[in-house]
Amino acid sequence: MGIGDVSKRVLLGRKLRSSQLGETLLPKRIALPVFASDALSSVAYAPDEIFIMLSLAGASAYVWSWKIGLAVAIVMIAVVASYRQTVHAYPSGGGDYEVASVNLGPTAGTTVASALLVDYVLTVAVSISSGAQYAASAFHGLIGHEATFATVMVVLLAAMNLRGVRESGTLFAIPTYAFMAAILGMCGFGLFRLVEGDLPEVASADLDMAAAPGYGESMTTIALIFLLARAFSSGSAALTGVEAISNGVPAFRRPKSRNAATTLLLLGMIAVTMMLSVILLAKEMGLQLVDPEDLHRLTLDGQPLPADYDQHTAISQIADALFSDFRPGFYLVVTVTGIILVLAANTAFNGFPVLGSILAKDGFAPRALGSRGDRLAYSNGIVFLAFMAIVLIQVFDAETTRLIQLYIVGVFVSFNLSQLGMIRHWTRHLKTERDPAVRRRMYRSRVINGIGLTLTAVVLIVVLVTKFFAGAWITILAMIVFFVLMRGIHRHYASVNDELAADEEDKVMPTRVHAIVLVSKLHKPTLRALAFAKATRPNVLEGVYVSVDPESTSRLLEEWDERNIDIPLKVLHSPYRELVRPIVDYALEIRKANPRGVVSVFIPEYVVGRWWEQLLHNQTALRLKGRLLFAPGVMVTSVPYQLRSSELVREREEREGVWVRPTELRMGNVRSRVNRDRQIQR
Amino acid sequence: MGIGDVSKRVLLGRKLRSSQLGETLLPKRIALPVFASDALSSVAYAPDEIFIMLSLAGASAYVWSWKIGLAVAIVMIAVVASYRQTVHAYPSGGGDYEVASVNLGPTAGTTVASALLVDYVLTVAVSISSGAQYAASAFHGLIGHEATFATVMVVLLAAMNLRGVRESGTLFAIPTYAFMAAILGMCGFGLFRLVEGDLPEVASADLDMAAAPGYGESMTTIALIFLLARAFSSGSAALTGVEAISNGVPAFRRPKSRNAATTLLLLGMIAVTMMLSVILLAKEMGLQLVDPEDLHRLTLDGQPLPADYDQHTAISQIADALFSDFRPGFYLVVTVTGIILVLAANTAFNGFPVLGSILAKDGFAPRALGSRGDRLAYSNGIVFLAFMAIVLIQVFDAETTRLIQLYIVGVFVSFNLSQLGMIRHWTRHLKTERDPAVRRRMYRSRVINGIGLTLTAVVLIVVLVTKFFAGAWITILAMIVFFVLMRGIHRHYASVNDELAADEEDKVMPTRVHAIVLVSKLHKPTLRALAFAKATRPNVLEGVYVSVDPESTSRLLEEWDERNIDIPLKVLHSPYRELVRPIVDYALEIRKANPRGVVSVFIPEYVVGRWWEQLLHNQTALRLKGRLLFAPGVMVTSVPYQLRSSELVREREEREGVWVRPTELRMGNVRSRVNRDRQIQR
Repeated sequence: MGIGDVSKRVLLGRKLRSSQLGETLLPKRIALPVFASDALSSVAYAPDEIFIMLSLAGASAYVWSWKIGLAVAIVMIAVVASYRQTVHAYPSGGGDYEVASVNLGPTAGTTVASALLVDYVLTVAVSISSGAQYAASAFHGLIGHEATFATVMVVLLAAMNLRGVRESGTLFAIPTYAFMAAILGMCGFGLFRLVEGDLPEVASADLDMAAAPGYGESMTTIALIFLLARAFSSGSAALTGVEAISNGVPAFRRPKSRNAATTLLLLGMIAVTMMLSVILLAKEMGLQLVDPEDLHRLTLDGQPLPADYDQHTAISQIADALFSDFRPGFYLVVTVTGIILVLAANTAFNGFPVLGSILAKDGFAPRALGSRGDRLAYSNGIVFLAFMAIVLIQVFDAETTRLIQLYIVGVFVSFNLSQLGMIRHWTRHLKTERDPAVRRRMYRSRVINGIGLTLTAVVLIVVLVTKFFAGAWITILAMIVFFVLMRGIHRHYASVNDELAADEEDKVMPTRVHAIVLVSKLHKPTLRALAFAKATRPNVLEGVYVSVDPESTSRLLEEWDERNIDIPLKVLHSPYRELVRPIVDYALEIRKANPRGVVSVFIPEYVVGRWWEQLLHNQTALRLKGRLLFAPGVMVTSVPYQLRSSELVREREEREGVWVRPTELRMGNVRSRVNRDRQIQR
Repeated sequence: MGIGDVSKRVLLGRKLRSSQLGETLLPKRIALPVFASDALSSVAYAPDEIFIMLSLAGASAYVWSWKIGLAVAIVMIAVVASYRQTVHAYPSGGGDYEVASVNLGPTAGTTVASALLVDYVLTVAVSISSGAQYAASAFHGLIGHEATFATVMVVLLAAMNLRGVRESGTLFAIPTYAFMAAILGMCGFGLFRLVEGDLPEVASADLDMAAAPGYGESMTTIALIFLLARAFSSGSAALTGVEAISNGVPAFRRPKSRNAATTLLLLGMIAVTMMLSVILLAKEMGLQLVDPEDLHRLTLDGQPLPADYDQHTAISQIADALFSDFRPGFYLVVTVTGIILVLAANTAFNGFPVLGSILAKDGFAPRALGSRGDRLAYSNGIVFLAFMAIVLIQVFDAETTRLIQLYIVGVFVSFNLSQLGMIRHWTRHLKTERDPAVRRRMYRSRVINGIGLTLTAVVLIVVLVTKFFAGAWITILAMIVFFVLMRGIHRHYASVNDELAADEEDKVMPTRVHAIVLVSKLHKPTLRALAFAKATRPNVLEGVYVSVDPESTSRLLEEWDERNIDIPLKVLHSPYRELVRPIVDYALEIRKANPRGVVSVFIPEYVVGRWWEQLLHNQTALRLKGRLLFAPGVMVTSVPYQLRSSELVREREEREGVWVRPTELRMGNVRSRVNRDRQIQR
């Protein structure tokens, strides 16, 4: 196929491409589960945390539980309403980072990015830890080994993501809808029995709970308010993941923004319903939860609990009680909850590299993260995320209650900056917009974002005040580290750009080309390199041989004459068997003798296909190329000679196609094999 | 400095070189300690093993101890005599491997090589384990933590060797002479007191030792002989390291072979004296040693020993008793013994890569091992050796007695093949030699090697029979693995050589050169690459830009026009942000359109100096170069642009000079900075 044909293929390819892209975009019914797993999964632990915090003041404080639930729900509704505005204003999928960068400048953007990076780590740690608790409530053998189990799960998830499994909508749809059906079904069944008046009690209802020392009856009003604030901020964990849709607008079907906004509304409604139902049922069924460190505050008929007592999560206790006659119901609820938690963690494994690639484009992360198909960069991200999550799981022994103290700070930092950015956005656009209908809509949007900002700011302050010493400081520290790192990288790229900026002198052509071809033996690769070098018609052309022993040198010289090679051969003696330095020095000397010329070094290389073959060859060529790059006025040409086994590599590439990151689904650029085309113009 | 001047520097350099090389060669008094540490250090554990084996039959069997010592000494003398022949016949330093390869063919050579590789691992494990025992006898806090201590020592040694400390003769001379002085002094003092009749008893003399079940009084003659054979083969550990000098002949001063032979004789005499003295003293002082697993066979006044009883080595018990009134004497003996054991292990760390480089030259190991200054290959060898030694130490809990069971098989395999090779060598030379005096010498040498072969063959059989199930099978298995690996590598290199062999067609020049310069931005590196590419006067020259978004594409096109660049720019569209594949495909298409032409791809690269900067740049260029190597008819030219920070690399290289492997000392090519010259001829 000639170059001429390429343009035809291109046109064809382009057509195919746009039509096919449309096909792979997500309809709402699939988009909801794809983006909802993170937000919905928090219903698996957020209610528990409210009860655990309130328990400090004893069982009587549980009267506050549904009020706190309601407060969380109100914030959630405000946040959902705010993000519906974001989705319309920023349909490109940059999310909070883009909103903050565009409207508040790069510092705010970098702050949001560091918050999100930290949050991805915590999402994995919290979700998997909570998942381990569910697993333990179904399989009692796991009790006491939650941290190990959670670690294994993180490793498995990381391995899956390293392998690059392609995601499909179905992968998310089935378990997410199953989770919704199971939880809402269970809650409906429970509420029905509540109305009927035969609601059973959960297992922990028989226990007696003592208030923690310093709390309880004697508590001051201020202490009570502080306690309620802590319970509220723990419960706010339910809000994590709501922002996911704002990063995924490009993946929606047209009209993208409207569909995304609708999905977001749906998600919010489902999440609020689930959370409030679970809290209500838990309260009515007499649930009693304490901090797992504080189990001694629970007693049964005045006796301390047995040493092997394990406190199960709210949902599993409710399911256990409601389905005491129908065990499959219990196992279904616990299983789908566990699965949704794993999916939520998987979301973080996807979000981390996506954010990395956006940061890379803006020069805040290594550029390699930004290029598609850079498997190595992507893998490093996955490994880093998994490693950090495992450290957290091990340090906090997979106790969700303790990890929650670190969580949410990051989410609310980005919520706040994003809302603030949105208010700026509307204010800026109002300055130029004249159409009164549009202006009205903008005013309304600004009010909504204003309410969102007010509420999330209150939550952020509450979270900071109540949790700083309980662990939030770790998060803030980590954010600062990320922030400093990103700024440093940005500064570095900027200074390199300055140094590289072209000026007028740069077009000067070198006066002459002195080409040298490295010769190690007279084999096919060398002959090819000599022929190719000759084809470039340099001013001087010579072969260069590094002699380490006289015998093989004279053999080579003989062969050189025999074959009648009409190119002179220079022999560099290297009595200490060095190969690299004599060549580098020689190249530098040629250049010194003629500073306006250029030295062109041809390196014959043969290319093998198997990984172990690659270990056996070309190490010297690699080292030499690395060193020559530092020599000014020298260019290095690899002349490859493909051995038969090298075809293995090409075949493998054909088989695998281009590697697809598992994040493609939610970035809206899934594509089929057929349209692997690129276009050529001009 | 022009090219012309180079030849002057060369002449100067050559003169300097040969004179200086002479200076750095080793005189006998330095060569002895450099090569002796391994062989002499075995006196630290070989006598113990004889006593431990004999102890199975109870204390009465100790009457055999000095007879077995004598038998070991006789074998040692025969081996030393044999190697004196080798040193004369093969002065190039190839040692057993060379002797076996040349005279018995590559299979024997590879067998010897695998035996030696396994033995290096065991030398490290045994020496360091024994060293840990000595450390524990001086610092009682280490008792019970020998394996951990030994592991830490191996890690430290590996780190030191990875760092590349340059060895000096003094480093060896001081501790080795101190060791000789300490042990010989102690033995002399002991023998003097023996003659005087006031020889003290060692600590374990008071104990009662029971024979192992099935041994003792009721033992059959056959069982006794088997026991004595086992004790003998354990004691043969004293012979390891004797062959070291035969690998180091080139490092000796002239006359190299004669000096090496004399040193070998000295070494043998000292080793035999030490071993026999220690055995004699231990016997006379009532030493009682059992297998550390069998401590229950020792009793004190009918009572079992306390649980924290630690059995110390022969030398430390002797020193303890002899220097009961002069503690510094005890600590000196134990300390220098510990140091010499560490030096012996260090010998293996040096020998492993030396053997690797010899094997690489013959195509039995990855070629990278053969090139000087390939830090990576060298490091991999060190890490591998350390890792294997640590595995052995951990598995055998740093118990010398159990590790000894694996040792020696390898040494005696190579002893045998080497002696057999020497006999063949003399027989072959006798066929052509006519001078009767020389013939007489050859006959004598052949007899000596014959005796050596006979004795070492007996030992090998004894070792195999008595130790196969006690652990020698592990060694043999490891040898087989190395053997198969080396044969595989050799086969691979041979088949590649076949495929690469030049024929007549290979000189055909490509008909035309189509050059493309990759453009990512219009900065200095790109302009330089365009200028350099133009200087090579290709038939077609164009810039190629991969467009991932229309905005930056049109910006680039504008700039291209503004700057009046007279080279056409081709834009490849890549809607999925891929960079590598569009370029590779485009290059392949050009080549397809013109199969007899060559495509020359110019990649502008900028070069930075700090390691973290390197992470931030050029990942794409690297990936692209890797992929293009597999495209036939394409050559890849890197046009580097050195940023300011790249000077750091050059400065660092200047500071460090060329990296020196710590093995240079015993390979006879130590050199000073001054003669870092290479010569240029023709």
